[in-house]
Amino acid sequence: MNEERKILRQLGITLGELPAGENNAITDIPGVLVGHTTLYCGEGTLVEGKGPVRTGVTVVHPHGGNMFQDRILASTYVQNGAGALYGGVQLDEIGVLTTPIAITNTLSIGTVADGLVRYTLGQNSKCGLQDETVIPLVCECDDSFLNDIRGLHVISAHVEEAIREAKSGPVAQGNVGAGTGMATFDFKGGIGSSSRVTSDNYTVGVLVCSNFGSRRHMRIGGIPLGHNFKDCPPLPKAHREGSIVIVVGTNAPLCNRQLKRLGKRAMSGLARTGTISSHGSGDIVVTFCTAHQIPHDTEARVLNLSQVPDEHIDELFLATVEATEEAIANALFLAETMTGRDGNTLYELPIEETVALLRRRGYG
Amino acid sequence: MNEERKILRQLGITLGELPAGENNAITDIPGVLVGHTTLYCGEGTLVEGKGPVRTGVTVVHPHGGNMFQDRILASTYVQNGAGALYGGVQLDEIGVLTTPIAITNTLSIGTVADGLVRYTLGQNSKCGLQDETVIPLVCECDDSFLNDIRGLHVISAHVEEAIREAKSGPVAQGNVGAGTGMATFDFKGGIGSSSRVTSDNYTVGVLVCSNFGSRRHMRIGGIPLGHNFKDCPPLPKAHREGSIVIVVGTNAPLCNRQLKRLGKRAMSGLARTGTISSHGSGDIVVTFCTAHQIPHDTEARVLNLSQVPDEHIDELFLATVEATEEAIANALFLAETMTGRDGNTLYELPIEETVALLRRRGYG
Amino acid sequence: MNEERKILRQLGITLGELPAGENNAITDIPGVLVGHTTLYCGEGTLVEGKGPVRTGVTVVHPHGGNMFQDRILASTYVQNGAGALYGGVQLDEIGVLTTPIAITNTLSIGTVADGLVRYTLGQNSKCGLQDETVIPLVCECDDSFLNDIRGLHVISAHVEEAIREAKSGPVAQGNVGAGTGMATFDFKGGIGSSSRVTSDNYTVGVLVCSNFGSRRHMRIGGIPLGHNFKDCPPLPKAHREGSIVIVVGTNAPLCNRQLKRLGKRAMSGLARTGTISSHGSGDIVVTFCTAHQIPHDTEARVLNLSQVPDEHIDELFLATVEATEEAIANALFLAETMTGRDGNTLYELPIEETVALLRRRGYG
Amino acid sequence: MNEERKILRQLGITLGELPAGENNAITDIPGVLVGHTTLYCGEGTLVEGKGPVRTGVTVVHPHGGNMFQDRILASTYVQNGAGALYGGVQLDEIGVLTTPIAITNTLSIGTVADGLVRYTLGQNSKCGLQDETVIPLVCECDDSFLNDIRGLHVISAHVEEAIREAKSGPVAQGNVGAGTGMATFDFKGGIGSSSRVTSDNYTVGVLVCSNFGSRRHMRIGGIPLGHNFKDCPPLPKAHREGSIVIVVGTNAPLCNRQLKRLGKRAMSGLARTGTISSHGSGDIVVTFCTAHQIPHDTEARVLNLSQVPDEHIDELFLATVEATEEAIANALFLAETMTGRDGNTLYELPIEETVALLRRRGYG
Repeated sequence: MNEERKILRQLGITLGELPAGENNAITDIPGVLVGHTTLYCGEGTLVEGKGPVRTGVTVVHPHGGNMFQDRILASTYVQNGAGALYGGVQLDEIGVLTTPIAITNTLSIGTVADGLVRYTLGQNSKCGLQDETVIPLVCECDDSFLNDIRGLHVISAHVEEAIREAKSGPVAQGNVGAGTGMATFDFKGGIGSSSRVTSDNYTVGVLVCSNFGSRRHMRIGGIPLGHNFKDCPPLPKAHREGSIVIVVGTNAPLCNRQLKRLGKRAMSGLARTGTISSHGSGDIVVTFCTAHQIPHDTEARVLNLSQVPDEHIDELFLATVEATEEAIANALFLAETMTGRDGNTLYELPIEETVALLRRRGYG
Repeated sequence: MNEERKILRQLGITLGELPAGENNAITDIPGVLVGHTTLYCGEGTLVEGKGPVRTGVTVVHPHGGNMFQDRILASTYVQNGAGALYGGVQLDEIGVLTTPIAITNTLSIGTVADGLVRYTLGQNSKCGLQDETVIPLVCECDDSFLNDIRGLHVISAHVEEAIREAKSGPVAQGNVGAGTGMATFDFKGGIGSSSRVTSDNYTVGVLVCSNFGSRRHMRIGGIPLGHNFKDCPPLPKAHREGSIVIVVGTNAPLCNRQLKRLGKRAMSGLARTGTISSHGSGDIVVTFCTAHQIPHDTEARVLNLSQVPDEHIDELFLATVEATEEAIANALFLAETMTGRDGNTLYELPIEETVALLRRRGYG
Repeated sequence: MNEERKILRQLGITLGELPAGENNAITDIPGVLVGHTTLYCGEGTLVEGKGPVRTGVTVVHPHGGNMFQDRILASTYVQNGAGALYGGVQLDEIGVLTTPIAITNTLSIGTVADGLVRYTLGQNSKCGLQDETVIPLVCECDDSFLNDIRGLHVISAHVEEAIREAKSGPVAQGNVGAGTGMATFDFKGGIGSSSRVTSDNYTVGVLVCSNFGSRRHMRIGGIPLGHNFKDCPPLPKAHREGSIVIVVGTNAPLCNRQLKRLGKRAMSGLARTGTISSHGSGDIVVTFCTAHQIPHDTEARVLNLSQVPDEHIDELFLATVEATEEAIANALFLAETMTGRDGNTLYELPIEETVALLRRRGYG
Repeated sequence: MNEERKILRQLGITLGELPAGENNAITDIPGVLVGHTTLYCGEGTLVEGKGPVRTGVTVVHPHGGNMFQDRILASTYVQNGAGALYGGVQLDEIGVLTTPIAITNTLSIGTVADGLVRYTLGQNSKCGLQDETVIPLVCECDDSFLNDIRGLHVISAHVEEAIREAKSGPVAQGNVGAGTGMATFDFKGGIGSSSRVTSDNYTVGVLVCSNFGSRRHMRIGGIPLGHNFKDCPPLPKAHREGSIVIVVGTNAPLCNRQLKRLGKRAMSGLARTGTISSHGSGDIVVTFCTAHQIPHDTEARVLNLSQVPDEHIDELFLATVEATEEAIANALFLAETMTGRDGNTLYELPIEETVALLRRRGYG
């Protein structure tokens, strides 16, 4: 879908100082997979329950195996809680992620949670019997400007489909998966990803479902460009507050406390884009670390976990800030103009003009 | 179901110093309704998806009207997060509850959330169109010792049924609604409720879904009674960590900060029962205040909200502690022996013996 | 001072199920030292700046060495924040304690912090030059009912004195150090300590500066005894809200997230005593772990830290609850009647009567 | 001291879209006063205890009256807690500020807290007797690169001096008060202030003590300018992590929950400057609201407090972001080159070159 659109980096403009990984995506962390189920059908006037449908599910799978058995350290951070973070309370208490991370539209969280429950039960015959139950991790953004969100088109099988499709390597971005119907700075938004590699050869990868912002606040690479696109392309007929889900992963060994610190830096990356995290924007981060797997059925009385000393954590902070800033830019650069319910349209960011402005402002 | 079982208060033993309200229940707060959908069927060996079914849904509705339009101040508090609190992040950010509060089993949260979404969409034709979307509030406990939890027997229609059945007046307790299959201190547990009235004539009401604790830690009215029932009645074949959901309501005018303070006191009430909030026990509180309704579609540039000065809040704290301690006792006293999947049995607390012990220890 | 008073355990009554350590004190954790500076002089009417003086400083030193160089993992938890916790923000961010923990009266925190700064500068000639600065950890309770608190009698040298006096072995309790002028449940309170040893042979130790509660709420071992001492011995002329500082230590290896979990359990132990954590009571916990020392000047790029799996943490939770409950009881049993400014008197808990009541209620 | 240096706004460059108040300072909020005590003396090699001295105290007084009697709503927010926030725990629990806000160097917090205690005792003869005690609010940054911080040159009388000097109108910025020895992006930093006025005619004012950042990350108005000053003017001989204290005030009526939301937006303003909130940088906000005074000695059983509906809060968020971003720029533009201990020098930001770069990048 995005063949003709290129990201900043392909256009010769790099954000930040650290090098990106091979795919410039969260999948640069060894083992991490991303999968999308994209639901796109129907045109014209809204008929509730029939569409137009502009939504989907995106899944980040930290290791591709059985997350209930081989759990990984993770943490959440909420900059602005006008959103949902199903599973976050448990994640922060017990410190481990026990399912893949799923993202969808606001009204489909329940269904997607149910899908992750069914997926976990399928993989683990003792879950809910000899073993404890499972609480999945699901985040959301609101795509109701384009999507027939009241139609509740996501079904629980879409989650398994996204997991089945999940793969390493380049990540489909823009109008895919949970990002299908999303908006960013009143342009078309969606999924974006980016990564950074540190001098200790750790990778930090970020995936966003980007659906936030007022156009006039937009900064790219820090440059306030929003007012250059005042109403051209046209603003959406109605402004939505939106939200952003930011998934941050790393293979650097970090404890839960440190993962929360990283999550806060994702918010620094977000703030660089000029957003004020407006009242209705759920700005939420989930951060995970693949360095250790915490087995479900351990007899061990002691776990041995390594961690980067906090004195050496700054480069991981920088990597998180930069990858978040670039992941959002990538979502903007790769998402294409889309029309949804009732003729509502979100226009894509004009790339050529944007790049020209950035060059004039000192980039590239 | 509970006709023959009586609560402590009916047996002449009162906990605490403040008077209870008329029903000694959360419904003593004017306007508050409670509804249950109880799912109970099948006996014998577990056949996944067929039962035995020992679960349900319980709904606390703060005013019986349209919560999306007439929102109320609320807050959450997490003592031990080994559970789910779907909607809590938004609640704490925007400060208002926009749906009834639903409780169910751990694996059915997604379905119940979906049910609350459908209910809200049905009531509000603009929700997700001109108006923003909705994020419901759902809590859970794990009833898998008795219930075929993997069978996912709760469907989204059960939520609407519980809301439709919700009423003021006496609250059905024990083996009903979400409490159907729950355990407490290795006895049969379930739903419990209690209330207190302060000298300023404010009511504090508590409803618990009680599913926590190791028998040997059990204290009633503070008295360590657990070891008196060492293995008689028999302990469950397998100990489950459980959880407790505590819903605290009041008609005293309080701000979000103060509601969170009340929530913490519910945990003081819980701790009086001797529990250590074990690793796997999700001990979670939702606190709401019916004193104000915050209209969804307000043109007002300023809201006028009253609040009790913190200097006068202690009696509300005491009311919360006492009502929580008694609500848990009421769950224990009203729940009856139940056998579920694979012949697993949870025995009821022996009332006569318990009361006799309490009298000998200085009560009544 | 406490020769004639005995604690419950010496009187044949034990609280909880886990065994206490050798000294039944926080010093049972190998390496942990406790020191007090007690300021007691003057009688009669208050002359501001002259006394009567009933205050002091108590220091818990986790290893007796140079804390700025050899830091240990620690965490805080605030049940009710109506108090001060100087240094807590940094502790929770960087995860390590860099000074001993000091406790004093509310108005002397600044002075005691200054004392800890001077002490740290004295030990570390590079601190604030080549090395970073230091932020000490100081907590407080309000002893103004007995003490001429406005006289600001604590000076910064008293901190070094308490550190110098710090020792392992039995801990002086009751009217000593920061506990000199404190009240508990309207009786005389002060310093208390207790410990528990787990089946994995880990020690959890607790030290409290106990200064909270309304007499009518008092429970000992869970038994509501407060109303048995309604106004005999006489209630204080004025009720003070007070506060409680709870220091929890362990040699079990735990990460910061787990230490915060332990801290919350200290509050479960506190709640067992019947308090409602009233509005003005600062109920604050600092939890530390001596299992690892995190060197200040490390070249290491990775730290190897062990931790108890959360699946095996419950016995540490239980140890924390029990040691907290008993430490408070010990403060009550060891503190002796004291008269302070303007003839204000706090009476000691009548031990014989209390023990008799406990025996009649099923203990011992 | 700053007569020859001008801020961006005086040089024709404005940041953001909202208008500044009359003084473009926190004092644009009616009633708010700012006072500084600047300690500057000595040159040359460090002689501990003798200098050179490059430090001070800055006080923000929300209303100029007796804060212990006439308290105002306030809240804290910690982006990175590698700093101290003495009094923050109580502030967030009881919701009101009971002293002026003081800022100083890291090692002088204790002394400054003592100064605020003495000041409060002087004003309130019942404080610590019939009335409760006081816990002051003190923040810090580390000025040890220039200042003989180990010399502990701030004494408690300097606090009262700063309060006595506090005034409305233009705010002295740059090398004054607590900002005297501070660094920002490896340039000279210090105190900065800015304000915004909303369409509802509310004022949001910000004062920062700016002492953070690595030069290469510096963005002004979003434009990445840091690398343009790679080592010219020279970088400091040693990089310090620093910190930033951000005080946000407003006369818009807001509750505690909303004030915390504003505080988070100060961090969005901070992030716009390019900082990654590095490990050792204590990035801390205190937010207050002057709309209501909560009397200490009230008989009232109910307080009536107005608040802006959250649906209309975005402009206040924007005002906070913009005023924070500009306050930091103002600190950079007004601070002048300073040499301190051991010849350590922090160079001022080259204004002409900066402005020229900003103009070429699209500003002004």
